[in-house]
Amino acid sequence: MKLHNYFRSSASFRVRIALELKGLPYEYVPVHLVKGEHKQEGYAALSPSMLVPTLVTDAGEHLGQSMAIIEWLDETHPQQPLMPRDPLGRARVRALSQLIACEIHPLNNLRVLKYLTQELKVDEETKATWYRHWVREGLLAFERELAQLPRGKYAYGDTPTLVDCCLVPQIFNGKRFNTDYSGLDRTMAAFDACMELPAFQRAQPSHQPDNEA
Amino acid sequence: MKLHNYFRSSASFRVRIALELKGLPYEYVPVHLVKGEHKQEGYAALSPSMLVPTLVTDAGEHLGQSMAIIEWLDETHPQQPLMPRDPLGRARVRALSQLIACEIHPLNNLRVLKYLTQELKVDEETKATWYRHWVREGLLAFERELAQLPRGKYAYGDTPTLVDCCLVPQIFNGKRFNTDYSGLDRTMAAFDACMELPAFQRAQPSHQPDNEA
Repeated sequence: MKLHNYFRSSASFRVRIALELKGLPYEYVPVHLVKGEHKQEGYAALSPSMLVPTLVTDAGEHLGQSMAIIEWLDETHPQQPLMPRDPLGRARVRALSQLIACEIHPLNNLRVLKYLTQELKVDEETKATWYRHWVREGLLAFERELAQLPRGKYAYGDTPTLVDCCLVPQIFNGKRFNTDYSGLDRTMAAFDACMELPAFQRAQPSHQPDNEA
Repeated sequence: MKLHNYFRSSASFRVRIALELKGLPYEYVPVHLVKGEHKQEGYAALSPSMLVPTLVTDAGEHLGQSMAIIEWLDETHPQQPLMPRDPLGRARVRALSQLIACEIHPLNNLRVLKYLTQELKVDEETKATWYRHWVREGLLAFERELAQLPRGKYAYGDTPTLVDCCLVPQIFNGKRFNTDYSGLDRTMAAFDACMELPAFQRAQPSHQPDNEA
């Protein structure tokens, strides 16, 4: 498999975690978002929506959208399952994942931050406040949701799931803007537990070949 | 089942479509977002993230996040399936759904539009331009993705899927801000095919008990 992705992209990071957790080897193909490589002809032919990541399967299929890719990986490579077996468990895992992937992350990705500065002409401090606002509000909601569920080692249960694949990149992402993570006890405990695992370590931005940090 | 929701909320509309397509009766419980009812104690006890919709199952479980609810409905009520049977088909359906639910809709929901006007002090025209920008750009990406897939009657294949549950509310939503839908041939053909079905008609905002339009 080939993963077309960018070291700092949260959605890319999610898929790298899943691949590492499952022990699946893959070829890393960097797509430089800041240089606009995702909008160039070559990548657009692979991903018509011009978003990273794209997973190219061994059968040559191009898969987009990180949560969809991870569920596909889980359905086709069942070792180290990332989804619970029962429908209620899957509903909980999907809902917690979507709380990050649909409510927090979309507001803070590169093209939105660009629109804020280039079109709305907001200054750097206003942009950072916007950024921290959505991460903080979203993670507080996430923490309240976790509080309703039995406590496990990871975000949902005692093995890593799709939720952790979404949570860890979001925490990394928010750290870049010095987001306040106080009062997020369950959330941060899950994050810390994940970071003890080699799979999460290997998937992090600073360990990627295109890392510039 | 009980659906706590708001007539105009796109995420609520998605779940109503799924319930109607499957012919599942449900009790409609309105939550007035503009009046802030989702942030009041009663609803927050039901939905700690204070988002609509919440589906309360016959077993008394509270389920959040529209795409997660719809997949749960599909797994527990298999009549009129909303997901393909093969993993690749499911990956395509999830990716197209997420292209709407993670890339377009989050930028235009009520709390984001409020932040634009109240915190960033943008005027109505700038807000409307922001709104139309993300809908238009997102749907153009959606159209390009559709163009890579075999043509069916609906967005994916010849029966309605999760994609249509996400697409139709997004089209309704964008119409309120007079978004330009030109050049979206496959997308709008799928929308039109959906709107010929009674399930989509019954689920639309203007047919709900809390409708104010």
